[in-house]
Amino acid sequence: MKAQRVEMFVCPMATPSDTSGLQQLADSGKVRPDTLVALAGKTEGTGQHDDWGRVWADVVLREWTAKFLGIPVTEVAKQVIFVLSGGCPGVITPHIAVVAREWIEVPDGDIDAKEDKRLVVGRAGSDAMPPEEVGRMGQIEKVAEATRRAMADAGLTDPRDVHLVMVKVPGLTTASIKDAESRGKTVVSHDLTFGPEGAGVYANDAAALGVAMALGEVPESALSDEVVRRNWDLYSEVAMTSSGGEKRHGEVVLFGNSSGSQSSLRIGHAVTKDFIDAEGVRNALRSAGLQFEALPSEAELSRLVHVFAKSVIPGSDQVRGRRITLLDDVDAYQIGKALGGMLVASVTGRTTNYVSGGERNSHQGPPGGNIVAAVVRVDG
Amino acid sequence: MKAQRVEMFVCPMATPSDTSGLQQLADSGKVRPDTLVALAGKTEGTGQHDDWGRVWADVVLREWTAKFLGIPVTEVAKQVIFVLSGGCPGVITPHIAVVAREWIEVPDGDIDAKEDKRLVVGRAGSDAMPPEEVGRMGQIEKVAEATRRAMADAGLTDPRDVHLVMVKVPGLTTASIKDAESRGKTVVSHDLTFGPEGAGVYANDAAALGVAMALGEVPESALSDEVVRRNWDLYSEVAMTSSGGEKRHGEVVLFGNSSGSQSSLRIGHAVTKDFIDAEGVRNALRSAGLQFEALPSEAELSRLVHVFAKSVIPGSDQVRGRRITLLDDVDAYQIGKALGGMLVASVTGRTTNYVSGGERNSHQGPPGGNIVAAVVRVDG
Amino acid sequence: MKAQRVEMFVCPMATPSDTSGLQQLADSGKVRPDTLVALAGKTEGTGQHDDWGRVWADVVLREWTAKFLGIPVTEVAKQVIFVLSGGCPGVITPHIAVVAREWIEVPDGDIDAKEDKRLVVGRAGSDAMPPEEVGRMGQIEKVAEATRRAMADAGLTDPRDVHLVMVKVPGLTTASIKDAESRGKTVVSHDLTFGPEGAGVYANDAAALGVAMALGEVPESALSDEVVRRNWDLYSEVAMTSSGGEKRHGEVVLFGNSSGSQSSLRIGHAVTKDFIDAEGVRNALRSAGLQFEALPSEAELSRLVHVFAKSVIPGSDQVRGRRITLLDDVDAYQIGKALGGMLVASVTGRTTNYVSGGERNSHQGPPGGNIVAAVVRVDG
Amino acid sequence: MKAQRVEMFVCPMATPSDTSGLQQLADSGKVRPDTLVALAGKTEGTGQHDDWGRVWADVVLREWTAKFLGIPVTEVAKQVIFVLSGGCPGVITPHIAVVAREWIEVPDGDIDAKEDKRLVVGRAGSDAMPPEEVGRMGQIEKVAEATRRAMADAGLTDPRDVHLVMVKVPGLTTASIKDAESRGKTVVSHDLTFGPEGAGVYANDAAALGVAMALGEVPESALSDEVVRRNWDLYSEVAMTSSGGEKRHGEVVLFGNSSGSQSSLRIGHAVTKDFIDAEGVRNALRSAGLQFEALPSEAELSRLVHVFAKSVIPGSDQVRGRRITLLDDVDAYQIGKALGGMLVASVTGRTTNYVSGGERNSHQGPPGGNIVAAVVRVDG
Repeated sequence: MKAQRVEMFVCPMATPSDTSGLQQLADSGKVRPDTLVALAGKTEGTGQHDDWGRVWADVVLREWTAKFLGIPVTEVAKQVIFVLSGGCPGVITPHIAVVAREWIEVPDGDIDAKEDKRLVVGRAGSDAMPPEEVGRMGQIEKVAEATRRAMADAGLTDPRDVHLVMVKVPGLTTASIKDAESRGKTVVSHDLTFGPEGAGVYANDAAALGVAMALGEVPESALSDEVVRRNWDLYSEVAMTSSGGEKRHGEVVLFGNSSGSQSSLRIGHAVTKDFIDAEGVRNALRSAGLQFEALPSEAELSRLVHVFAKSVIPGSDQVRGRRITLLDDVDAYQIGKALGGMLVASVTGRTTNYVSGGERNSHQGPPGGNIVAAVVRVDG
Repeated sequence: MKAQRVEMFVCPMATPSDTSGLQQLADSGKVRPDTLVALAGKTEGTGQHDDWGRVWADVVLREWTAKFLGIPVTEVAKQVIFVLSGGCPGVITPHIAVVAREWIEVPDGDIDAKEDKRLVVGRAGSDAMPPEEVGRMGQIEKVAEATRRAMADAGLTDPRDVHLVMVKVPGLTTASIKDAESRGKTVVSHDLTFGPEGAGVYANDAAALGVAMALGEVPESALSDEVVRRNWDLYSEVAMTSSGGEKRHGEVVLFGNSSGSQSSLRIGHAVTKDFIDAEGVRNALRSAGLQFEALPSEAELSRLVHVFAKSVIPGSDQVRGRRITLLDDVDAYQIGKALGGMLVASVTGRTTNYVSGGERNSHQGPPGGNIVAAVVRVDG
Repeated sequence: MKAQRVEMFVCPMATPSDTSGLQQLADSGKVRPDTLVALAGKTEGTGQHDDWGRVWADVVLREWTAKFLGIPVTEVAKQVIFVLSGGCPGVITPHIAVVAREWIEVPDGDIDAKEDKRLVVGRAGSDAMPPEEVGRMGQIEKVAEATRRAMADAGLTDPRDVHLVMVKVPGLTTASIKDAESRGKTVVSHDLTFGPEGAGVYANDAAALGVAMALGEVPESALSDEVVRRNWDLYSEVAMTSSGGEKRHGEVVLFGNSSGSQSSLRIGHAVTKDFIDAEGVRNALRSAGLQFEALPSEAELSRLVHVFAKSVIPGSDQVRGRRITLLDDVDAYQIGKALGGMLVASVTGRTTNYVSGGERNSHQGPPGGNIVAAVVRVDG
Repeated sequence: MKAQRVEMFVCPMATPSDTSGLQQLADSGKVRPDTLVALAGKTEGTGQHDDWGRVWADVVLREWTAKFLGIPVTEVAKQVIFVLSGGCPGVITPHIAVVAREWIEVPDGDIDAKEDKRLVVGRAGSDAMPPEEVGRMGQIEKVAEATRRAMADAGLTDPRDVHLVMVKVPGLTTASIKDAESRGKTVVSHDLTFGPEGAGVYANDAAALGVAMALGEVPESALSDEVVRRNWDLYSEVAMTSSGGEKRHGEVVLFGNSSGSQSSLRIGHAVTKDFIDAEGVRNALRSAGLQFEALPSEAELSRLVHVFAKSVIPGSDQVRGRRITLLDDVDAYQIGKALGGMLVASVTGRTTNYVSGGERNSHQGPPGGNIVAAVVRVDG
């Protein structure tokens, strides 16, 4: 019987085009062409529309992967899922987390022998999403469907075993809006930014609701075009989503724990209760299996492999009853992301954390709170 | 015999011109014209050169104070020290901390009866500092001299009892540079910004070294024009300094603990070991007298009156062995300040903290680390 | 018979709170409490959400005006229309243009004696606009109605005599959205910024269409909620509009030329054909009456009193067939405004020009082009 | 006898990695490996420290050139000079100007037959410049020496025939400062930015003074370490300089007109008298040979091949007697550059202009003014 053995390696990058960490993993045999399933990382630069650091990294990493896998660059997306989040403001080290999945033959009886559940990963692509579906039910349903297939690919059946679902979906572009409107369709927004009415956040949020629908976090009956970015009581606690105008299909990479897994790693997650809630970050470490009461020891922290966190800006100007001006800060997009980086780093004692965000309000996590997932090494 | 009773009140501000909190203190009699000694606060806005929020707040607060004290606006600076730090990026609530000092008549024997030391405050102005002295030994020595007098005003003799020295000194302006050069003098910099060679940081850092000299943190023999912003091993652990082109004299307000004090408050301080060191913030709380092992309880935190913290950007691109890009972030000045705000808020569980900073490297605190001072209520 | 005599004075401001220019006008008797009708100006600062320069200027100017008119601050808006546009990036000198209108008794026959038309000004307030009307037909119709009354107040009947209509209307706020939704109404946007789907630009653009409707530039039948910020072929060539969340009513100040006017000034306008069209600026000068073929002489320019220009960013990334990246510039809002300032200043040879803008696309002016109005001195 | 025939081709770039324009030139034979001498261009992105657009473009263009020339990437700098200026804010189209030089055999008598002078180009590298020389006499002298050799390479002897000298020199880095100081040397600045005391502007300005010295614009006796960025009366009218920490040598590419040239192109230049002086731009077009009185006709403009302009921010806050706030604008670096782009585009009627700048004060051009050079087609 086949069982998964998943590994995750975190490679700091010295520049947007630095593939030396990846190459070392390849040279050492830790990652092989047939085991590489995903690259998730933070690229340096401003993370804004006119940031070319992310684009350059994407081009270089795809070229490297194509060469590594011996396939054309255009085929890479079918085998390896890329989730590159731009912008490392503050104390976020530019890095790539490399996910490798091996299929191990184990005796049939052995599977249940492991008493604790371990990390598994699953992936799936979605059907094409035309521009008129972006940020609406069409996108929600297609992401939900892909999430279900990614769960299956991970070998998971219970949504409670799912701790992180990274999704990339199509956003809108000037060209795709024109296409939709030429066919008599409307689009969710003409704002191509990540502002509060931007197409980018509508796409991200529809994707988050798609995950929530697949995992039963939100009942299908509660969902409609009208709730997207309106009813913040509907949300996922495990979805981290992004969107890009250049994409036509959704992509899902899903992480969870399974008793069948042969991995040395385990994943957990929690949500912060508000924007300054360090305890929420610690809860994610606890959920993944770090043992501590108030603060984790250095020894426990050394078992931490990686943290994935969102840093969505709260829609309110109040934190614990006091006014903050973050919503009015012109640089809120960067500052919001940077603050999440500090909240996580001040707990983990390290700066190589995946922290994305900066947008205002989201169905990724509860109102005011943010999702934090952690991967820890259990043994080995 | 006279003894001090010092109180500190923290008033959130709803706009840069909001004096309602001050007015309430005045109306309730908690602050009287003869007890008001200092206003230290954070004003909203960007905190950059073209931020008018701080200027507006300064104008309005001086007008309010003049009216409260029944004196002309131009006389206010002689009686009340203003330390307004511009910029509340992220999770820093705009606010004013009001310092009031009362002189209590106590029986001579009583002073030593109190076994623990309590908060005292002292103030002093310095001699005028011509532009050629800014950022150089002249400024260092005059700040040192004023610091010594502020200690005396506080009734302190042991530098170890001093936990926070807030200083404002003259910086440079186009006009004052012209003045100096017309007299055949040179100035420390022609850069009027807070960049790494800016006149603003030279002035701030000379002021910090002045405090360090007065308190014996740095031997006078180690000081010269050449070490300012060059030898980072020379620093104060209690100086928080700022500069303004419009000033001609230095102003010092100094906080410490004295066994003679009749205050209900106590102050303490610590330095963080690096930019993500939450434990350094907790050490400041402990130093002031909060009782906890790993994390402070809500009950203990409710005794916290206020935190004053610097958030100077480290001069290195490494935090705990990993590269960060903060030095290259175009918005580093704001992001650096915002990150300090998060580090403190995630420990104190509140956003009304005084956090200034954003500049690169400083003699305020050790290389890479930052100063944190805390005031707590001991009884009452 | 009564005839208007309108004067316009341009006062540079040294700070946001500088009323010295106004005071001089008052002291010299050039402006009297009964002649002051409008203040239109540019205030220094970033012009962004977190810019307090404009707010401070507004507070100070209203206080000055209240004192000058001998009325409470809250009554000022009923007598004097304020149009303060925040942000002077680049080569725009902070200033206030003061509009004074006197009613002169002239013999009945005299009116038509003047063969050329001269400057007149009219004002009107609109009915209250509830939040659900912002950016929609309700706002369009109420602005149209007020524009018609402002025309009547100016003594104008032919829309071709109208050259500039400055309008301020209510925008949306968190509070007003809540109010509307609590009454079962929807609002045009939840984005409170001036981004492409922001409430601010919807309000501005509905106001522009209101002007266009009143002046017959757009037939009423072409107007509906759906065309606002969608059909860019509908626009006004004379509307300069702005919005503020704090307002409940619209305010209109309208400038035109009338043969009945006893003014020494005349106004004209033109639209630029694209973002770099200096000839469009020159056409506005010609329209107002400056005499020149290719370039205006210094002597002719000395007759120029003031220029009012919009600098709306084109919705396309092409200028004369070449790609520009302005739409992607993170600072496009400021850069777009600054570029308009340069286009005008490089033609007028002076920096005291009223230039507002920075938003993307607008019904203020044709697609890609911008409105420029000029006031010149004809005699005196 | 050998004579130069120089061509210049302007290729807009659709992205930082777009080499399609170059490839077309190569495919058509218009540029050959032995004729390619320089690439000068504007790359999109913010143009700030954390802008990766310029870096990416540099990498891609060097790779393309290496392949085109059939040499290793590391050898490219010896054969082709790259001047890539980052940042296309506003109305500056990202583009590359390709300079090709062919040596034509002409009969000895023929050279003087051409009565008008035509475009020639020369290049030279300088000796290595250690960090202690950056921004000082060492750098000035080495640039002067290289400029003289570039003149010789261009076949020019009279400095009045030189109209544009583009120079790249080493700047400072953390590493090179450490190197200098470890050898007991000082460096000109510890500020690595392009702020007013930044190492970058010191290097640029020393390079400009080097050009001025070589061309006799400034007497050698007037030059010393002390005058750099202090005495603004010393400047070049033809130097456009930049610096990079990664470089060890200076590189010079020099453009002028020679009666021996067989080119169809001619170059000219002028300086603007202040920041809004469109006439200064027109003077550059006239200097190059466009024929017009007030404004150039479309037909004349069609002969314009390219414009190279600086947009240095004036050190004063006054333009023609009025205050501007540009010096205080936080985004002055970008806005200043953008304004230069508008000034040129509003005259040339096109956006593909090379405009660099944004720094405050410079020895590139007179105080307050900027250099504009233009290349026009004379025949063919």
